[in-house]
Amino acid sequence: MGKNLTSRSEDYSKWYNELVVKADLAENSGVRGCMVIKPYGYAIWEKMQAGLDKMFKETGHENAYFPIFIPKSYLSKEASHVEGFAKECAVVTHYRLKNAEDGSGIIVDPDAKLEEELIVRPTSETIIWDTYRKWIQSYRDLPLLINQWANVVRWEMRTRLFLRTAEFLWQEGHTAHATEKEAIEEAEQMMHIYAEFAEEHMAVPVIKGVKTESERFAGAIETYCIEALMQDGKALQAGTSHFLGQNFAKAFDVKFATKEGKQEYVWATSWGVSTRLMGALVMTHSDDNGLVLPPKLAPIQVVIVPIYKGEEQLDVISEKVNPLVKELRSKGISVKYDNRDTHKPGFKFNEYELKGVPVRLAIGQRDLDNGTFEVARRDTLEKETVKAEDVVSKIEFLMDDIQKNIYQKAADYRKEHITEVNSYDEFKAVLESKGGFVSAHWDGTAETEDRIKEETKATIRCIPLDAKEESGSCMVTGKPSNKRVLFAKAY
Amino acid sequence: MGKNLTSRSEDYSKWYNELVVKADLAENSGVRGCMVIKPYGYAIWEKMQAGLDKMFKETGHENAYFPIFIPKSYLSKEASHVEGFAKECAVVTHYRLKNAEDGSGIIVDPDAKLEEELIVRPTSETIIWDTYRKWIQSYRDLPLLINQWANVVRWEMRTRLFLRTAEFLWQEGHTAHATEKEAIEEAEQMMHIYAEFAEEHMAVPVIKGVKTESERFAGAIETYCIEALMQDGKALQAGTSHFLGQNFAKAFDVKFATKEGKQEYVWATSWGVSTRLMGALVMTHSDDNGLVLPPKLAPIQVVIVPIYKGEEQLDVISEKVNPLVKELRSKGISVKYDNRDTHKPGFKFNEYELKGVPVRLAIGQRDLDNGTFEVARRDTLEKETVKAEDVVSKIEFLMDDIQKNIYQKAADYRKEHITEVNSYDEFKAVLESKGGFVSAHWDGTAETEDRIKEETKATIRCIPLDAKEESGSCMVTGKPSNKRVLFAKAY
Ligand SMILES: [Zn+2]
Ligand SMILES: [Zn+2]
Repeated sequence: MGKNLTSRSEDYSKWYNELVVKADLAENSGVRGCMVIKPYGYAIWEKMQAGLDKMFKETGHENAYFPIFIPKSYLSKEASHVEGFAKECAVVTHYRLKNAEDGSGIIVDPDAKLEEELIVRPTSETIIWDTYRKWIQSYRDLPLLINQWANVVRWEMRTRLFLRTAEFLWQEGHTAHATEKEAIEEAEQMMHIYAEFAEEHMAVPVIKGVKTESERFAGAIETYCIEALMQDGKALQAGTSHFLGQNFAKAFDVKFATKEGKQEYVWATSWGVSTRLMGALVMTHSDDNGLVLPPKLAPIQVVIVPIYKGEEQLDVISEKVNPLVKELRSKGISVKYDNRDTHKPGFKFNEYELKGVPVRLAIGQRDLDNGTFEVARRDTLEKETVKAEDVVSKIEFLMDDIQKNIYQKAADYRKEHITEVNSYDEFKAVLESKGGFVSAHWDGTAETEDRIKEETKATIRCIPLDAKEESGSCMVTGKPSNKRVLFAKAY
Repeated sequence: MGKNLTSRSEDYSKWYNELVVKADLAENSGVRGCMVIKPYGYAIWEKMQAGLDKMFKETGHENAYFPIFIPKSYLSKEASHVEGFAKECAVVTHYRLKNAEDGSGIIVDPDAKLEEELIVRPTSETIIWDTYRKWIQSYRDLPLLINQWANVVRWEMRTRLFLRTAEFLWQEGHTAHATEKEAIEEAEQMMHIYAEFAEEHMAVPVIKGVKTESERFAGAIETYCIEALMQDGKALQAGTSHFLGQNFAKAFDVKFATKEGKQEYVWATSWGVSTRLMGALVMTHSDDNGLVLPPKLAPIQVVIVPIYKGEEQLDVISEKVNPLVKELRSKGISVKYDNRDTHKPGFKFNEYELKGVPVRLAIGQRDLDNGTFEVARRDTLEKETVKAEDVVSKIEFLMDDIQKNIYQKAADYRKEHITEVNSYDEFKAVLESKGGFVSAHWDGTAETEDRIKEETKATIRCIPLDAKEESGSCMVTGKPSNKRVLFAKAY
């Protein structure tokens, strides 16, 4: 096929956009800012969902489903929440179309105006806490540990596939607790679960931390996050978990009777990851040849390409391949045997490289003669000839080794791209030349944070959980600071 | 707790509404016509999804995701399609809220009016076929076999939990084919898959058939359906599969190059089932004590309730129960050991009866003395004392037997409630006295169908696939008819 993929060094942003489309992950639709997730991309998302869902359930969460529409009055109940979302709301105002009387076509029926406008959910705290008021009466009803898999809409002006789209898919957890301590522990637990998922399933190393006040979720007391680093040196927020205090309980009047019979407001968390993770996955591992997928999320883990002339030779090859396919499947490895006669082996090699299939086997006449397969791994592009009797254990080894190798590669890259600086000039120089995370002292004020953002486009990605106490002075104002925070330009 | 459930004979409709809420399946939300699917209800839906998804994938379908919004102009492109959906469309007209200048609160920003209104998808044929135009060039791109799990919105004036809600969850398959024959085969295949799912997973017997022209999907050439019968004698359409001909291909200009190099329009199908299946499940099996769930869809298949006084006795019981729980789980049976000390056994018995848990074990002092468990099955409410060493095989037997028994019960009920009639008077009498399906001759015209509907509220549910050729005359007009069709009042 010829990939014609722009290289990363040439234009990273263009490389990403092309890759997402060419690898059949997603594409823009005819609806402004809304994407179509194509079958190959969706298959990866399904694997992400399955992995996360299992972790949620193992920690006692249940799934439920709440309405897509939020009455305008609900959204308005928590002041900072509506402030945060008002500017990007898709608003339903009518419930009927009709034929125009002048015959000009289908129009919105002005007689079908809603009494109260409905917002297509940008997030569901308000509708969910309106429901929790009915579900929670006593401490016996707590904790309430619920997750929802859903689509949400935030009207973005500039969109990019997976990274920023008007509609996206996500999960949103919403939990209710009797005590502040328990709610904070829940919010922290979910951050750890997200980090575990990112690192062990996606092979994406992340930094755990908390957001500064300016970067917090609208309505949160504390926002925990995981931050990843892309190959262009920009950070990407991969998941957030919020301790919401009693803000939503107060806005929606959700109280419970304690064991002692007192009425108290309920403590809340919410947490979410979205199809944005797909963007993080692509940008962390892929190269100028296409996607590189971690075996744990690859829809096809092994592809087998026969190299043959004529049906007779294909039959001989298939006799070797079919039992191998069966054996691999019995071990839970997903295999595709691509014996299409409409495409040449070279075309297929290109295609599976582009699509990031972790392991490719090829088998031709020489392999038939020698009882071997050619085994190619996608991450390093290394090829090796392996005896047929060793090929299964080789593949099992590679499933594990590729997963580890791409994680390590990303972790090494990140390690090289966390730079400590002690002056604002140094800060700017590192940001421009090298990118990545820049670790610096900051005076803790929103003013300084804003100034840095305006002057350099870098934001505080997080105050890392493992930041060590270290007395220093803010690189901008010289005021005292007791720990370093991580800055970066970000997606 | 005391169930306080209205009985079916007293008020079937009230019984249903109460049961759905009390069994924690779903409830109405603060948003008109939109429901909240509660965790217990959602867990059943997840099992339905998993069962169906597996069947779809085994027949070569892949999942994808398309935008929730449909531009008004797209919806308008297929004439009969927009005709069918225009009256129930939620319309997005604006993309921003703002603070009112007079301080009266949050309002829709009049400056943020969309150039073209967006419809919240009532179904996705139009946006999908707009996409397929880009995906299909040649016969090599066909068939295209895609499914989507999504929420859809149809603005209904009178809603009922699961049966008819403004927003509901569903799957919608959309396939594209090179030939008419292949598309028809696909539409038929999906009807058969739906029937298999209904009968084998839900234990709901269904009749397969085709819809009359008036009852067809808006834009379809042929609508295949499966029809179930509820305990009040009303029918419920449980799934539909449409042969769409070339209607959408023509509306969206989707052509492909044949092997011979000719340009032809693509042939289409679409097919869907929704959370409506939850309503069918509840109404088919449940009784005046609550839900009756088929083991294959029950989130909890076995509940174990200890009957004890004091912690010491509970410990002795738990020593017997814990290894049993472990063994059952290792066999893939979902078990809940309800050792809560906040509720009495009687309360728990009631609760699990209400929630339709197929098998309940109880164990108290006498069982400890005798080495037994009390085993109760939900479908027949029979109780039996079973030796501890036999209890696993007893449960395995019951998983199978309850599934079969409730299917058979529903099939027997349906058999008794298909009545052949030969005159319109007899037809009306049967409809009023006995309900169910009424099998009658009809002259094949929409006029007669409409008249019957107006006069009796009965509609033609389907022309059964297995209807035998039989010359007769229409019960209303006396005109000739060559097969019987099935009428019923329906949900
Ligand atoms: Zn670098
Ligand atoms: Zn009867």
